[in-house]
This record gives sequence, structure tokens and C-alpha cells, in this order.
Amino acid sequence: MIKYPAGIKPKKGQEESEKPTKKKSLKAMATAANRGMGFESDINLTNDYYREKGIALIYKRPTPINIVKVDYTHGAKITDAYFETQSTTDYNGVYKGKYLDFEAKSTRSKTSFPLNNIAPQQITHLKLVKIHGGIAFFLINLALMDETYLLDAQYVCDFYDKKERMSIPFEEIKKHGHLVKEGYSPRYDYLPLVDEFFLK
Amino acid sequence: MIKYPAGIKPKKGQEESEKPTKKKSLKAMATAANRGMGFESDINLTNDYYREKGIALIYKRPTPINIVKVDYTHGAKITDAYFETQSTTDYNGVYKGKYLDFEAKSTRSKTSFPLNNIAPQQITHLKLVKIHGGIAFFLINLALMDETYLLDAQYVCDFYDKKERMSIPFEEIKKHGHLVKEGYSPRYDYLPLVDEFFLK
Repeated sequence: MIKYPAGIKPKKGQEESEKPTKKKSLKAMATAANRGMGFESDINLTNDYYREKGIALIYKRPTPINIVKVDYTHGAKITDAYFETQSTTDYNGVYKGKYLDFEAKSTRSKTSFPLNNIAPQQITHLKLVKIHGGIAFFLINLALMDETYLLDAQYVCDFYDKKERMSIPFEEIKKHGHLVKEGYSPRYDYLPLVDEFFLK
Repeated sequence: MIKYPAGIKPKKGQEESEKPTKKKSLKAMATAANRGMGFESDINLTNDYYREKGIALIYKRPTPINIVKVDYTHGAKITDAYFETQSTTDYNGVYKGKYLDFEAKSTRSKTSFPLNNIAPQQITHLKLVKIHGGIAFFLINLALMDETYLLDAQYVCDFYDKKERMSIPFEEIKKHGHLVKEGYSPRYDYLPLVDEFFLK
């Protein structure tokens, strides 16, 4: 079941046309869904590849955790803790001396990328990265279409600030973003797009 | 009690001369010790200042935690987890477009900075930061002397790799490092040194 974000409804007939008609289509959709769920780990693998090949040094930030209680009787075991909201983005690092910062998101929507996927403090953070001269973007995986786009954080922040829509239509992402080349290794080769659109 | 790192012994008479002789000296030493313990939080305050003033965007990385069990009966409570070793450094961020990465350490030693304060993977990480054109350094707080030095990561990595000594003598830190100006706010104003020694 697809949950349509507020303000976005599928065009008439659109849902029907995307329904699988053959077994093959069903399998293809399942594969795409799995890929969507594994998007973050694929980005991690991509960054591992970049690191091993000496191309860039990009890490996933650890999830911030608020520790309430630690049991020291057998080593240091955390027995009471809570997840904190990430005040920044998931990934940052260095590429050709420049600071690079991005968020990777996957959506199973058929029509648009819901902005409630992004926390307000992430928008604030990415704006600050831009102000300080860093490279900031989103990697948006359209899971059902099996496509991933690099989208300048500036565009997403502007869209967010306008508050006209609660989601970015795919046609806008395709128009303003750049298709990331997929492969076996690296899975999502996004750095050539950074070269082309941020470092030229 | 001061633990002398392997290979480093206090010079004859040095310990005696540093013993507090008056109440005032005792208090001064206690203050210095507290400052040493609060060094990390002072660096956090310094970074808050830089962020609020729009000077730089530098964050402390969250401590990586390996989560074993989460109880979802009342929200999401982590009931079993362990600390993982940080594979990078404590701080990174963006300053004038450049990637900046550092480790902040305080020592209560009287003579030298023990290298067992630094994990091997942190040395590896900082070397990679340098290779990728980032700014990498250590902030070393000599707690008992109430002085903090910015030391290029390259120097520390070279010293580490030589394996001749297990600690960097203070005179070497003073010779190769740069004294960080202390104040009320920012507590440790290290960015002017970055301007002078990394960005010129």
C-alpha cells in the first residue's frame, strides 16, 4: 500500500497502470523494494569503495544515543538508553579537500518525495553547510523506479521553505537533479556528479 | 598520583619542585585539573560559539554504540548495548569550505603527552584526511600547565610511526605546536591558528 503524502494524489489511471500484470513484473517490483530498503547499506558500500580506492573519505555518522544507565559489573553494558534525533545529516567527509555533506533517502512513493522524510534541523544544517562553502546534497532513491538522483541541497531547502507542497514531484527531481549511475561496485557512483556540478 | 608513561621519568628534583607548597598552589592545581577534565566540554562550547557566530560548522561525532536489544513496549528503549571503538576522531566539520578534522586530548602528565591516548585507527584516519586535502590536527591540553597547543596531525603521525618514544615531550609540543589563545568565549580560540598555519 502506498501512502500518499498530503496534497499529492495519484493521477487518474496512474495507479492501475503501475499494477503488475505478470509474474515477472511482480518479481521486478519486489527486487526494487528490497533495493529501496537496502539503499542505506548500498551507500555505505559505495563509501567503503571510495575509501578503499583512495577517492574520498566519507563516513556515516553514528546515531546519537542518550545513555541513561551503564552496568559496569561485566565490562560496560548499556542497560538504559534512548535514540536522540540526529541534528545533522547521515553522511559527511572530505573529497578533494572540500567538505562534503549529504543525506540519503529512499522512497517507495510512485509520484513524489515526501518532505516529512527530512527533519527541520537537517534543512538548517544543510543551509549552514552551504553558507560555510561546503558541498551539500541529497541522494534520493526512487525505489519503485529503480532510479537514484543527486539533488542539490539548495534546491531542496528552497522547496522546503516555500511550504507550497509537502512533497517534491518526481518530475521536478528529474528536472533539477542528476541521475546517479548504478553498478556493481561502486553501487551508486555519485562522486562524478559532484565533480560535474559542484567542483567545476 | 602521576603515572609516567613508559620511557619517561621525571628529572631529579622536578617532582619536588611541582609539589604544592601553599594552600593557594593546591587550589590552583585543583582548578587546572578540573579544567583538564572539562577540556572536551570546553571544546564543545568553543564549537558552539563558532557555530552561533557563523564562523565554522564543527560538530562532535556521536559515540558509536552497538545495539543488541531494543524494548518497544514503551517507546524505543535500548536495554542492551555496548560502546564501540571510534574509528575516526571526535570532531569534524567545515571551515571556509575546507574539511577540518581533529582530536582533542588532555593530559595530566608533567613532562610529555602519552601516545597511548591515541588509537591506531585515529592515526590512520588522520593520515587519510591529509591525503584527501583536509585540515587535520590535534588539540593537546597540558592540564597542569594550563596550556593548550594545536599540533599538526602530520607531526603526530610521523612521531607515532617512528616508534622511538611512547610519548611526545612537552618541549617538542611547544616547539612544533602553536599555543591556543584561551579566553572566556570562545574558550579555546583555535581557528586563527588554522588560518595562519593551514590556509595561508
